[in-house]
This record gives sequence, structure tokens and C-alpha cells, in this order.
Amino acid sequence: MTSRDGAGQRLYFEDLQVGQRFTGDRTCTVDAEQIKAFATEFDPQPFHLDAAAGRSTVFGGLVASGWHTAALTMRLILEGGPPLAGGSLGLGAELDWLKPVRPGDTLSVRGEVLAAVASRSRPDRGRVTMRTETCNQHGDVVQVCVSKLLVPRRPAPSGA
Amino acid sequence: MTSRDGAGQRLYFEDLQVGQRFTGDRTCTVDAEQIKAFATEFDPQPFHLDAAAGRSTVFGGLVASGWHTAALTMRLILEGGPPLAGGSLGLGAELDWLKPVRPGDTLSVRGEVLAAVASRSRPDRGRVTMRTETCNQHGDVVQVCVSKLLVPRRPAPSGA
Repeated sequence: MTSRDGAGQRLYFEDLQVGQRFTGDRTCTVDAEQIKAFATEFDPQPFHLDAAAGRSTVFGGLVASGWHTAALTMRLILEGGPPLAGGSLGLGAELDWLKPVRPGDTLSVRGEVLAAVASRSRPDRGRVTMRTETCNQHGDVVQVCVSKLLVPRRPAPSGA
Repeated sequence: MTSRDGAGQRLYFEDLQVGQRFTGDRTCTVDAEQIKAFATEFDPQPFHLDAAAGRSTVFGGLVASGWHTAALTMRLILEGGPPLAGGSLGLGAELDWLKPVRPGDTLSVRGEVLAAVASRSRPDRGRVTMRTETCNQHGDVVQVCVSKLLVPRRPAPSGA
């Protein structure tokens, strides 16, 4: 699937199969001011706040908070990823931060359905496991996020 | 350990043992405006943006983005959790969102060291696995975060 196939058509649990892939059709470029603003509010550490302070750390300069990368990834998925019915209802997520995100980096996402299991107790929903890679402009994967999502099943046609 | 024991003294890998617990000494209260502002920037879904729209969803009202909860948890750890040498250098994290965070909720954190493994290849560091629970004012755990952290080993005394 590509993310914009059937634009306007929402994807239900029945529409998702293991192995399906998507490529997000949005990118976002993160600048130093955005990195510092996020860090000031949520992750005030020297290497997220100040380029000079970051130079003496393992990062060698200013880098985005991993939580900032995760939040930007969420927006890239919502804006350009598969349009799930009911929205993106996350039960949990496993994150790996593989490379730093630096000022000027342009991020994009691509994903794959790893699992799709119908609920036994709740016939109106299923649980979908999605793996999303966040890449920079060099093609490096900066973050892998494996998320557990609640996805509604397609409602029976009325009158059925 | 409590988070403020030895204030000003940073904790190195050698100071962390499996089973050690901390209780953060900060809280933060999240209001509707903060929930909407975060969602507008990173997770623009109806149940994070508008109380009326949220009422018809599984959440029954306005709720914070899970990524917002994760970011607030990071700040609570930095401000009131164990003062790790080198800062909080996350390699990855596993999140479970157990309950929604709603406007007016007051969050706090408590944690436990699950694992501490010295690096074989890099004698200056180790990897620490920390489990952090984020609780609301009712004592409900709203999020569990198991994070993998890079923690520096204590430098040898100069002249040694």
C-alpha cells in the first residue's frame, strides 16, 4: 500500500495484512530553534540546548531529543502514512534511536505491518503491530519505532 | 536511593545496582491548553485537540498524546530523578500507555534499575535498563517506560 492510495478512504483492521508496507509522502526539516524549544520544555540537557555545550559530549554538537524525533515521526505518520480508521490509537511503542538528528536534517518515514490480531473479547477491534523507520536525508535510519495500535474492524453494513 | 540523596553528586555506572529504586521529587500538572498545543504540533488527532470531538471516541473526552506523556516523563526524570553522570543518554525505550492522561492530571515518576551491564568494547561506559512508572494523582500508573541508557563509568582518579 502507499499512504495516499484511496485518499479519503480509511483503513480498517480488515485492510491491513502482515508484510504490507507504506512510504510516507511527507518530510519535515528540523532546525536548531525547534530542537532547542522542544528540549527547553521537555528534555533540557546541554546537548539538546546548545551547540557549543554539545561539542564536548558523545554527540559532538547539538542534537534533537529522541522524544522530539518520536513526536515528529508521529506527525509524519499522521500526515502522510496509512490513514487508519479511528486514528492512530497507540497502546505502546518500542523505540530505538540509532543515529542523532541534527539541525537541518530532513526526516521521512516508511513502515511495515508486522502483526495483525483480531481481539477475541472485543469483536469491533484488532491489534496491529507496525514497524516505522524514520530516515534522514542521507537515507540513514535515525529511529525505529515498533508500535502497538488499536484498529477498528469494519462495521457491518447497516441492515446486515 | 532517593533522587536527591547526594544532591550535586552525579551517579556513575558503578553507583547503579539492579533493584535500586527512586521516587522522583517533582510533579507536573497538565492542562487542556498544553494538551492541545502539543497535539497541534505533533499529534493532531480529534481526541487530543477537542473535548467535544473526544467524547465520541474510546477516550470519552480530551486526552494527552502518549508522546506528550512520554516527553513530560522525561522532564520529571531529569528534574527530580536520579542525577546520572553524562545526563540521560537514551539508546531506546519501550513504552506502554495504560491509562489516558486528562486535563488537570498531576503526574509523578518512580523508577527501578532493571539491569546494569558494563560495555566490553568501551571500558568507559555501561548500559543501564531503567523502568519508570508515570503515575497520576489517583495513584494510577498511566505509562510504563523501560529505557536503555548509556551511563559513563567513574573515571579513574587522576594520577592512578
